[in-house]
Amino acid sequence: MADPRFFRAAGPFTVGDLAAATGAEIGGAANAALRLDDVAPLEAAGPHHLSFFSNVKYAEMLACSAAGAAFVHPAAAARAPAAMTLLLSANPYLSFARAAARFHPAPRRPVGIAASAVIDSSALLGPAVSIGHHVVVEAGAEIGAQTEIGHNCVIGPGVVIGRDCVIGANVTLSHCVLGDRVRLFPGVRIGQDGFGFAPDPAGHVKIPQLGRVLIGNDVEIGANSTIDRGAGPDTIIGAGSMIDNLVQIGHNVVLGRGCILAAQVGVSGSTKLGDFVALGGQVGLAGHLSIGTGAQLVAQSGVMRDVPPGTVYAGTPAVPRRQWLRQTAILDRLATKKDK
Amino acid sequence: MADPRFFRAAGPFTVGDLAAATGAEIGGAANAALRLDDVAPLEAAGPHHLSFFSNVKYAEMLACSAAGAAFVHPAAAARAPAAMTLLLSANPYLSFARAAARFHPAPRRPVGIAASAVIDSSALLGPAVSIGHHVVVEAGAEIGAQTEIGHNCVIGPGVVIGRDCVIGANVTLSHCVLGDRVRLFPGVRIGQDGFGFAPDPAGHVKIPQLGRVLIGNDVEIGANSTIDRGAGPDTIIGAGSMIDNLVQIGHNVVLGRGCILAAQVGVSGSTKLGDFVALGGQVGLAGHLSIGTGAQLVAQSGVMRDVPPGTVYAGTPAVPRRQWLRQTAILDRLATKKDK
Amino acid sequence: MADPRFFRAAGPFTVGDLAAATGAEIGGAANAALRLDDVAPLEAAGPHHLSFFSNVKYAEMLACSAAGAAFVHPAAAARAPAAMTLLLSANPYLSFARAAARFHPAPRRPVGIAASAVIDSSALLGPAVSIGHHVVVEAGAEIGAQTEIGHNCVIGPGVVIGRDCVIGANVTLSHCVLGDRVRLFPGVRIGQDGFGFAPDPAGHVKIPQLGRVLIGNDVEIGANSTIDRGAGPDTIIGAGSMIDNLVQIGHNVVLGRGCILAAQVGVSGSTKLGDFVALGGQVGLAGHLSIGTGAQLVAQSGVMRDVPPGTVYAGTPAVPRRQWLRQTAILDRLATKKDK
Repeated sequence: MADPRFFRAAGPFTVGDLAAATGAEIGGAANAALRLDDVAPLEAAGPHHLSFFSNVKYAEMLACSAAGAAFVHPAAAARAPAAMTLLLSANPYLSFARAAARFHPAPRRPVGIAASAVIDSSALLGPAVSIGHHVVVEAGAEIGAQTEIGHNCVIGPGVVIGRDCVIGANVTLSHCVLGDRVRLFPGVRIGQDGFGFAPDPAGHVKIPQLGRVLIGNDVEIGANSTIDRGAGPDTIIGAGSMIDNLVQIGHNVVLGRGCILAAQVGVSGSTKLGDFVALGGQVGLAGHLSIGTGAQLVAQSGVMRDVPPGTVYAGTPAVPRRQWLRQTAILDRLATKKDK
Repeated sequence: MADPRFFRAAGPFTVGDLAAATGAEIGGAANAALRLDDVAPLEAAGPHHLSFFSNVKYAEMLACSAAGAAFVHPAAAARAPAAMTLLLSANPYLSFARAAARFHPAPRRPVGIAASAVIDSSALLGPAVSIGHHVVVEAGAEIGAQTEIGHNCVIGPGVVIGRDCVIGANVTLSHCVLGDRVRLFPGVRIGQDGFGFAPDPAGHVKIPQLGRVLIGNDVEIGANSTIDRGAGPDTIIGAGSMIDNLVQIGHNVVLGRGCILAAQVGVSGSTKLGDFVALGGQVGLAGHLSIGTGAQLVAQSGVMRDVPPGTVYAGTPAVPRRQWLRQTAILDRLATKKDK
Repeated sequence: MADPRFFRAAGPFTVGDLAAATGAEIGGAANAALRLDDVAPLEAAGPHHLSFFSNVKYAEMLACSAAGAAFVHPAAAARAPAAMTLLLSANPYLSFARAAARFHPAPRRPVGIAASAVIDSSALLGPAVSIGHHVVVEAGAEIGAQTEIGHNCVIGPGVVIGRDCVIGANVTLSHCVLGDRVRLFPGVRIGQDGFGFAPDPAGHVKIPQLGRVLIGNDVEIGANSTIDRGAGPDTIIGAGSMIDNLVQIGHNVVLGRGCILAAQVGVSGSTKLGDFVALGGQVGLAGHLSIGTGAQLVAQSGVMRDVPPGTVYAGTPAVPRRQWLRQTAILDRLATKKDK
């Protein structure tokens, strides 16, 4: 289904292959030998495509779909057409994600070092790295095995990058240590000075920023996002965190494992997030806060106080979402009354 | 008027030339042969400068201006000094824009391919292209006639760029198809993966992003803005849309024709905008919304529901602007009362 | 204390050296000859480290600290351990900033011009400049003495950069004049077209942007921030202003001296800030406003009207902070009442 100009599916795989790979049980028409050529959404899929159903809003699409096979929850199996082979899964979207990654593994650049790259003689490059055109790798930097550095990147002195990382084009790194399988999208800036200075009418005086940025395994950071290094302590991004585009992370910030930050979020200096915190788009966190594990912030919230674990907050200043919904409802009612 | 270090006016043109080019009627002192050397604002213009008057706030400036000629609305002609030649237009600002573009056409880089550019042998370059220093053009990319690629850009595999485009420096493109006369400012990132994954405590699982970014003719995209490619469907930017700096466009978003997005706007995944939608600075749109043709959102609005065509909304969550004004007024009154 | 992989302290210095350099008086254990090897926070410092105490919240840390010396306010001297040598200062944080800069002066790149840099023959380079790999310096540009241009930067035609500036990697400059000691972080974009056009359903018509960006001495601009050039007047950033990451400054904006703009702030076209204005993160200012000297805006404020000098405003639309606190308190109370 995808434009062959840009994408080429691996495979084909059989239903049996994918059931084995994802732990799904085969149901429905139960054709384990069915050849699947690619993934596709329910409405566009044909008899050799794999799809999924995870949102009851799309029940009609499932009923009408010509997909050869689809991941569905066992409880929804009856909604599928009789001719469809089902891959029964407690989490069809997650199973689909795993199967789709088999059809479309992240493409890798050819191994090798571009002639125009400038690599300091003291830098250490692991086996099978790929270094793009016009890259600069400075003194003492280390790049792990199978890692790929995009064109026009600058890898500063001493920077450490783990193995199997993919660094997009035009990225700038300094004062940082990256784990394995980290993915940075184009234009990311990591490790520059934090925004630290002593204000003074005679001229603000910068405080030397003496920390680093530490990035855990399996972290993804979106295009043109910026992460400042610590002022003394380090700035830390926990393993498995997903950060969208144009996000700002200030100095000394700590993210736990598996945090999700949507686009244009800003986290001010020294704020700490527990594990699996989820921040909606354009959320802003003041400095020196603690956001508990599993807390969620609705998009555009402005957070000025600590947020307890497992809660959902919204608004500026952020309050529990239920309270925010009441606030907006009562304000709306007052404004409507006034009109009469 | 403009610093000759950076700008050089074409011309000179006569009032008659510019009246013909813009369809304006000549009035006032009516000197059609008057030589005009450049454009200038009313307060700074001299007898060989062209200016315009479109805002009654500046009526006094018009009355005192030494501009040789100015675009004015016929209804405002009487406010101009007697010595001024008038170019009468129903839309003086628009007419001025057209005339100013004659004095200051966008400067073009010299045609040719920089020696340091790395162009894959399978890429197709149209006639009279300009490829800057340290550019990378990857396999199968196509660049249209007279298009200019700024220094240090990376044009990914298969990317298609139309004719007469101007791509600023340090831009990164992948998985996208651009129309003609598209202008991208420095640091734009187009076509990277959308923010799509199945959340899982054992490690979020990425969904392969198999769509493209399609950009219509005459689109302009500001510095450091980011546009993710579709997840399966495409991300689409309608012809003639104007996008300011640091804007984020998520996967599967569709913009109609002539949309205007001010700086730092964020549009979440799968939201669709009709034609000529205008979003003020820092507006955030949630995902999967429909914003009707001609709708306007006041700056910093946070939009959580569909917006009907032709309406003006404001606030977070966004409501009709009139309702928002009432909300802010009543809240202010309540807060003031409380003080007594 | 800092990771030697990335940082190397100058020095050592004695307490006497640093007292002389900062004008502090020596108190406490008063060991002027004490050798100090580096700076460190109170809780981590040892007998040859210099620290500071400026926030009563950390009084216990001071009391327990093993730091050899620390800057403290004279009124707090009694809280320090007897063995600590004190550097008494009316502004301990500012004094510490000055001392820390002695230990950690900004590292400088080696002087010289990289072989891969492309420098137009008409460009003027001052003595002792450092030009990184794959830099492009275009016709007529001027770069002052001891200034450093990071790798992969593009310095446009006619651009003027003062002396002792540090331009980070992957920066793009055009149509601008920079003072001395300006620091630009990676990915900054300065001087591109402002967002100016005459809207028209038949196709918005761009207005040529004929102004410049003028940047005063000692200005710092954060990663991936964008500053558009003026439309006719200039965009001006006053001396000593500190601008954080991902900030947007529109055309014709004027910042006074010493302004502080936190991350993700957006300033719309033609708005003027006085001296020492401080804008919290994600603040948005509408166009054509006047923000008085010393005014402060709380994070995420949306400013639609002028702000008087010396005031603190908050909220959207922004009102005096006290009024905003009342608004949020009363709204919260109404919403809570409704619950009963």
